[in-house]
Amino acid sequence: MKRKEFLRGGALAFGGLLLNPFRAKANTIKEEFGSRKAKNIIFMVSDGMSSGTLNMADLYSRRKLGKPSHWISLYEESLVNRGVMDMASLNSIVTDSAAASSSWGGGKRVNNGSLNIGPNGEEYLPILQKFKKAGKKVGCVTTVPITHATPAGFCVYTKSRNSQEDIAEIYSDLGFDVMMGGGHKYFDAAQRKDKKDMYSVFRNKGYSVARNKTEMNAASKNKPLLATFDVDGLPYSADQNSSSFMKNNIPTLAEMTDKAINQMKDHRNGFVMQVEAGKVDWAAHGNDIAGLLYDQLAFDDAVKVAIDFAKKDGNTLVIITSDHGNANPGLIYGKNVNSDFDRIQKFTQTNEWILQGVNPTDSVSTIKNRIALANAGINISDDQARELLGYYSKAKMEDGVYNPRHLPFKLLADIQKAYTSVGWISMDHSADYTELAMFGPGSDKMKPFMKNTDMHTFLLKAAEVENKF
Amino acid sequence: MKRKEFLRGGALAFGGLLLNPFRAKANTIKEEFGSRKAKNIIFMVSDGMSSGTLNMADLYSRRKLGKPSHWISLYEESLVNRGVMDMASLNSIVTDSAAASSSWGGGKRVNNGSLNIGPNGEEYLPILQKFKKAGKKVGCVTTVPITHATPAGFCVYTKSRNSQEDIAEIYSDLGFDVMMGGGHKYFDAAQRKDKKDMYSVFRNKGYSVARNKTEMNAASKNKPLLATFDVDGLPYSADQNSSSFMKNNIPTLAEMTDKAINQMKDHRNGFVMQVEAGKVDWAAHGNDIAGLLYDQLAFDDAVKVAIDFAKKDGNTLVIITSDHGNANPGLIYGKNVNSDFDRIQKFTQTNEWILQGVNPTDSVSTIKNRIALANAGINISDDQARELLGYYSKAKMEDGVYNPRHLPFKLLADIQKAYTSVGWISMDHSADYTELAMFGPGSDKMKPFMKNTDMHTFLLKAAEVENKF
Ligand SMILES: [Zn+2]
Ligand SMILES: [Zn+2]
Repeated sequence: MKRKEFLRGGALAFGGLLLNPFRAKANTIKEEFGSRKAKNIIFMVSDGMSSGTLNMADLYSRRKLGKPSHWISLYEESLVNRGVMDMASLNSIVTDSAAASSSWGGGKRVNNGSLNIGPNGEEYLPILQKFKKAGKKVGCVTTVPITHATPAGFCVYTKSRNSQEDIAEIYSDLGFDVMMGGGHKYFDAAQRKDKKDMYSVFRNKGYSVARNKTEMNAASKNKPLLATFDVDGLPYSADQNSSSFMKNNIPTLAEMTDKAINQMKDHRNGFVMQVEAGKVDWAAHGNDIAGLLYDQLAFDDAVKVAIDFAKKDGNTLVIITSDHGNANPGLIYGKNVNSDFDRIQKFTQTNEWILQGVNPTDSVSTIKNRIALANAGINISDDQARELLGYYSKAKMEDGVYNPRHLPFKLLADIQKAYTSVGWISMDHSADYTELAMFGPGSDKMKPFMKNTDMHTFLLKAAEVENKF
Repeated sequence: MKRKEFLRGGALAFGGLLLNPFRAKANTIKEEFGSRKAKNIIFMVSDGMSSGTLNMADLYSRRKLGKPSHWISLYEESLVNRGVMDMASLNSIVTDSAAASSSWGGGKRVNNGSLNIGPNGEEYLPILQKFKKAGKKVGCVTTVPITHATPAGFCVYTKSRNSQEDIAEIYSDLGFDVMMGGGHKYFDAAQRKDKKDMYSVFRNKGYSVARNKTEMNAASKNKPLLATFDVDGLPYSADQNSSSFMKNNIPTLAEMTDKAINQMKDHRNGFVMQVEAGKVDWAAHGNDIAGLLYDQLAFDDAVKVAIDFAKKDGNTLVIITSDHGNANPGLIYGKNVNSDFDRIQKFTQTNEWILQGVNPTDSVSTIKNRIALANAGINISDDQARELLGYYSKAKMEDGVYNPRHLPFKLLADIQKAYTSVGWISMDHSADYTELAMFGPGSDKMKPFMKNTDMHTFLLKAAEVENKF
């Protein structure tokens, strides 16, 4: 014991370096955090991020901005531990977002589509409820509806992931401190089936309600905050970057993350929050390269906000990961791959924007011009334009998870391939293990391979909160 | 200084654990290796392994054999450090195997297609020549021709990666200790353009020459060893597993690795070797799932051989990585994905075997039966069979890196997708950062993100060999 104390003293006296004279990485922030507990946890999810998505965002940063992405810079500077995570659900090697978030949130694998409900109706208490009971402030921010699967898996158990109106109502009983994202239609009396005005319910319970960036910024630190910035999901970053109206009214994921941290950071017992880039997944479902790349970059900006706070704070564990692969996008070998990839730097709108704005009566030149405008002047053929138009006259139809109008997302991605060198394996999730990085107190205990459900216990342990609920 | 010595003493006395009492991972083999130099290095490359390939091999092991793959088990047991590697070449964000191996072997990025030759004809001395000069034994084993890009990048500089006959001749001057793989036609007098019998050249320089497994096993430890087990690449593991002739005559990658280690392990100054699963890349180029999965599993068996040796030896650094992604295969979400994936467990032949064995005059039922035989009884439609046959009558043609006969590899993979749930983005390399794991002395100095060319210096430093050549 004496020797141990002396060693510990030595660590303090010599800044940790001498403690392990053999290790080159000693004295990084990572090493110094070793013995402390995580007062705060920021859990960051780029939903549906395949390894190619992470790769392309980093390549974009290096080629366009001359520096690595914030995520990869943590690797370059040896500030984080790195691993992969097995995200399988109870009934499938390929998970959906509900089962994925439940595995972390409730600590149990459930069937795809379930939110912390076991196959025999078991109810698994989600982790933000546990942390709330332990005295912490808790919250979620996302770019999709705040009632969507990934935030919901940390907050609630409920029979169906699709009952987002019900989830909005359950949220009003939880008393969580920050809930920000999209999903106005699940709170709005005019759009809810039961015509209940959920905003009034939240206000009556003491919440600030924000519907735009100004209101968000004005929200008091002394009240819990509910914010919905759009009817359903928030705009894609690529489209928002091209619209001053959207930029003025809707915060970025980084801005939401910053606000959420500020709402909770002075709480005596600390805070736990989830930050989700939910539309990375939607973009992958649409094989929508501009949607995917710029939303991943927006996530990367939020990573910087979280890490900057954690570095200053010293008691914050930041987890950065994804819940599953999606479409496994990648840049394909070929003599034009560099210039093709750099062309995407000049894409100003998503495929979502392109396709939602086409009318069945549009001419071939109208759709060609629309694509050229969005995609840095590329000139698709008349035949390709005619084939795209065929989907609007209902001659043809495409399905897809976020494609209720059956628009030709796949066809457009196939056409773009000749200009972008980007390929996709499908329009759905993949079984690939997800990337996992950790910064701050507790991160040293991470193994390079982790099962999703072990994350639940890991978070509780890192914060020294007992799993007694 | 006194304090430091005391701490070091403490470390020895207490097995390293007390040195860093805060770290849960302390006292693993990884931690214990910290201060030693790498007398031996085993550099293992699964060529063209995307993250989905690693994922599927691990899922196969877990579902079929009830245990993780050897590679992932190193993560589960926290025995390795983990990172990603940026493998870009000088002229492209997507590398080929020649430029990739050159970046490690010669320490410089070169244009795709170059083997350690700079854009202005600069010649970069490859790392196995450096290690050989430093007094170590050196060698390469691979499942493709031993003259192919990945081994060649560690051994030679030469103007063209395709002059494999020239590379065979350069090898004969190097005096390396073990060269094993395929590529008989580049050594065989009857098949070489210059009609030179390279085997005689090697024998005259004191080599044992092995042409089958028995001869390999019989080769003396006191002589350097050249072995070529097939005309070009070795058979795919999936096909070899179904052929007792191949199994008897051609060693597995694990068996070659074991033999190579035994040839060199007693050398006073240690050894450095490269081990390549080259046909993982070929299978990805062919979107050939049985080829890909079983060759990745054969690589995984070789990983076990190397790690088992390194654990016993204690002075061996093992690096496990890939040179680039290829085709980004992945298991796609869907209600049958579990049973589809498990079906591949029963595939007994590759698509290479299926397609090379079809004749233009075959009937629809012949090709259907051939596919059913190879692919666990799947029953493709008559129309699909007819479409496949169309490529043999030269009505249609497919291109591809390893597809000289223009056979319908892509079409067959598209047809199989309904039975396997496996998708591919292309038939070529991708820009994805590659997986990197290190075990043994020096591995603690690895950063989670590494540039390919830094590997060159890293290996020399880990072995304490100066880069003075
Ligand atoms: Zn999804
Ligand atoms: Zn290749």
